[in-house]
Amino acid sequence: MTTSSPPSLSALAERFGLTLRGDGAKHISGVGTLASATPDQLSFLSNAQYRKDLGHSRAGVIVLREEDAGEWNGNALFARDPYVAYAKIAALFENASAANAGVHPSSVVAPTARVAPTASIGPLCVIEDGAVVEDGAQIGASCVIGSHCTVGAQSQLKSRVTLVTRVTLGKRVIIHSGAVLGADGFGLAFERDHWIKVPQLGGVRVGDDCEIGANTTIDRGALEDTVLEDDVRLDNQIQIAHNVHIGAHTAMAGCSAVAGSARIGRYCLIGGNAGILGHITIADNVRITAKAMVTQSIEQAGEYSSGLPSQEASAWRKNAVRFRHLDELFRRVATLEKGFKR
Amino acid sequence: MTTSSPPSLSALAERFGLTLRGDGAKHISGVGTLASATPDQLSFLSNAQYRKDLGHSRAGVIVLREEDAGEWNGNALFARDPYVAYAKIAALFENASAANAGVHPSSVVAPTARVAPTASIGPLCVIEDGAVVEDGAQIGASCVIGSHCTVGAQSQLKSRVTLVTRVTLGKRVIIHSGAVLGADGFGLAFERDHWIKVPQLGGVRVGDDCEIGANTTIDRGALEDTVLEDDVRLDNQIQIAHNVHIGAHTAMAGCSAVAGSARIGRYCLIGGNAGILGHITIADNVRITAKAMVTQSIEQAGEYSSGLPSQEASAWRKNAVRFRHLDELFRRVATLEKGFKR
Amino acid sequence: MTTSSPPSLSALAERFGLTLRGDGAKHISGVGTLASATPDQLSFLSNAQYRKDLGHSRAGVIVLREEDAGEWNGNALFARDPYVAYAKIAALFENASAANAGVHPSSVVAPTARVAPTASIGPLCVIEDGAVVEDGAQIGASCVIGSHCTVGAQSQLKSRVTLVTRVTLGKRVIIHSGAVLGADGFGLAFERDHWIKVPQLGGVRVGDDCEIGANTTIDRGALEDTVLEDDVRLDNQIQIAHNVHIGAHTAMAGCSAVAGSARIGRYCLIGGNAGILGHITIADNVRITAKAMVTQSIEQAGEYSSGLPSQEASAWRKNAVRFRHLDELFRRVATLEKGFKR
Repeated sequence: MTTSSPPSLSALAERFGLTLRGDGAKHISGVGTLASATPDQLSFLSNAQYRKDLGHSRAGVIVLREEDAGEWNGNALFARDPYVAYAKIAALFENASAANAGVHPSSVVAPTARVAPTASIGPLCVIEDGAVVEDGAQIGASCVIGSHCTVGAQSQLKSRVTLVTRVTLGKRVIIHSGAVLGADGFGLAFERDHWIKVPQLGGVRVGDDCEIGANTTIDRGALEDTVLEDDVRLDNQIQIAHNVHIGAHTAMAGCSAVAGSARIGRYCLIGGNAGILGHITIADNVRITAKAMVTQSIEQAGEYSSGLPSQEASAWRKNAVRFRHLDELFRRVATLEKGFKR
Repeated sequence: MTTSSPPSLSALAERFGLTLRGDGAKHISGVGTLASATPDQLSFLSNAQYRKDLGHSRAGVIVLREEDAGEWNGNALFARDPYVAYAKIAALFENASAANAGVHPSSVVAPTARVAPTASIGPLCVIEDGAVVEDGAQIGASCVIGSHCTVGAQSQLKSRVTLVTRVTLGKRVIIHSGAVLGADGFGLAFERDHWIKVPQLGGVRVGDDCEIGANTTIDRGALEDTVLEDDVRLDNQIQIAHNVHIGAHTAMAGCSAVAGSARIGRYCLIGGNAGILGHITIADNVRITAKAMVTQSIEQAGEYSSGLPSQEASAWRKNAVRFRHLDELFRRVATLEKGFKR
Repeated sequence: MTTSSPPSLSALAERFGLTLRGDGAKHISGVGTLASATPDQLSFLSNAQYRKDLGHSRAGVIVLREEDAGEWNGNALFARDPYVAYAKIAALFENASAANAGVHPSSVVAPTARVAPTASIGPLCVIEDGAVVEDGAQIGASCVIGSHCTVGAQSQLKSRVTLVTRVTLGKRVIIHSGAVLGADGFGLAFERDHWIKVPQLGGVRVGDDCEIGANTTIDRGALEDTVLEDDVRLDNQIQIAHNVHIGAHTAMAGCSAVAGSARIGRYCLIGGNAGILGHITIADNVRITAKAMVTQSIEQAGEYSSGLPSQEASAWRKNAVRFRHLDELFRRVATLEKGFKR
């Protein structure tokens, strides 16, 4: 979404349902932080941590909550949620060059693949047997769309994305560079003295409006599919094992991982490098903090944590050694308590 | 391995050494879970957790242990290890289109590279100086086989695999998309006020029948090689540093990592996101659970763990703060014990 | 840097400022470990752990500290820092075939891109609109240099590196295969019942002499840039979120991660799989040990840790269960202490 001419503040107020204070005829040409925005740029205040920057800001207009505007005398666009309003306005200034429809001549498209005439395939892509790229989808440079994969309408694959096999993407899905969807799940059976590979016959199904980060991996299912419902948002370097099911609107931060056949609810937030073990179920509206290890099903909405925050190393070393005897300490205290009561 | 016509139950029993109960003349056309398999499909029961599904299954035949068959009156194939038997039968239904021998015309092959006539090189690959691709190996789309790398006979590289330099793969190795083998190890020397790169002159040697997951990285050695013995199985997003040595038949789950020059034994199982520090040795038959941190050598077979399972966040926060004073608590308890004895 | 003829020991001593003991006329043809070096190779002793190998070494010359030479009677090159001296000597034997200048005909270069005549672009690369590749830069096979990215002079991108958009690399930067720089930061705003994507309008700036490991990801900033100062060294599979700032000469080990807008000082060492939360500041000269979780700013130089080393699993299970009640135990001990004093 780009804008042909710089929008006026009154136009922004009207378009996004904001309340204007100040000069509605003023036009802005871009966005910036409170500290860096110039008089022809728009800024925003969402996180209270940055309120200290309000007084010094040179921004041409600031999007913020009306109750936060005390220290700001310039033009303002009042919003109930300034971050949401900012996100929508900033999109007007995103320099997203719409790719031309058509297949770049350097790409290799299998005769049985089907590419919609309005879709765009960048240079040096490979579109394999039976793959389908639907209306308006944009495939960046050097992508591989494997056999029997479908890219839904208006989806965007950035450069060097790989869909291996039996991956179905919904509409408006965004996948970042280096992501691999549809590789074999890690299925092994141990026979006497060696491993046997268990065929991975399922696929991956990704709902509408999902976003998948750079170098993230989502394996295809063993028998049934690995599933992301609509509007699931995955950051970079996340690992989703075979047959995982992630509910709609759940967001996961970088380097988190979910083991096989785990089922995560809707509207969950999973912190960075958190790990969810296999074959467990997480309820809706669960928040898992960074680096936590979830080993059992969670049935109640709420926030869950584990791990230990860092401390100075010599103190930590003493504590960590003591942890090895924590159970014993509990027994010793119980003994003391018994003795004391006598 | 595909099957030309649907196999009969008696054919399966004979081929895989199973005991048939029921209609040997029946043919099956695919596999499914207990809950989803149709009457012309085969299913299996291996994990006791799914025994509850036996009664409702519509499967045409079920592979299971004879002692588990009580609730199942339909056709059965009895196996000592149903999961192994299932893995072998399922392979008959894997739709693995054997790639055609030969080099796709869009690929770039160095004049000094050697590709066996029975090998297959997919589209848009690069085969660099001195690389060798042996009999029957299959290289997927957009792979890079770097200088002086060897892909052993019957090995399969899925699309977009990178072998950087001096990587030697054994026979029947499978590598998934996005994996990078043979990048420089992380070798740095600190001189006064800046880093100097330490040349990484070794390679990577991978034994027969290994499998390497999507976006996994295995660095080449500093002076000698990084080594995976035969039948090592690595899941996705694993990091193997330079000069690591992994014993035969060891399996590692996703996002685990091994630091430089660590030596892991044979038949080990390493859990997801577990970390093994550098320059230590792990014995054979060691199991490391998910997210554990191994900081010292392990000399005895057995299971080892660390980390903390998640709990409700407000309780966790209190406990985590207390941990900072755990050593002090041990001293306080010792003082109490001394006082009490007096 | 390669050497045309095997250097003599006296030439090495002079070139690298080392003190020679023994036969200055001797030539060496390569390098090896103490245990494996042959009489025509050079070895080194830096880590005291390997001193035991000195007596048995067959190396033609050993680089070591003079005070460590007691057990070694052969040729020696004395250095204050043997590892630094070794790194420089080993570079003479690195078989780095300098790529030919020019663009491989299979690559696709946008008309608005600018490639210096002395730069080298390997096969099957894509150089997008407005990208710049400066003097002597070497781009390996199958790289994507996205729109408005700049590769500084003498930088080396190994095969299959992706620069997505608005990435600027300094001079002599090395990036390993599979790395993705400049993908969208993970910016989301929650509106009522679904996510809205926050445009990521910043870029990535990487200073001179940085090195970035295989499959590492560095996101571009939301409004301002994500920044690595000079001589930052990142190992494999590291995740750097948007608007992170990393000070000069900081080194991070594999699988570590930094969340959005965190600021890390100069000369820091971050251990493997360590995690640094968002919006915090780490001082200069801070060392974070492996797998530690840093949740708050660190203002003092020093070493910081968290996590727990592994122990035998059945003991660990008892301790981990007890941890859930650690706060309660502190209270119980306080009660005992109070009672005891009475």
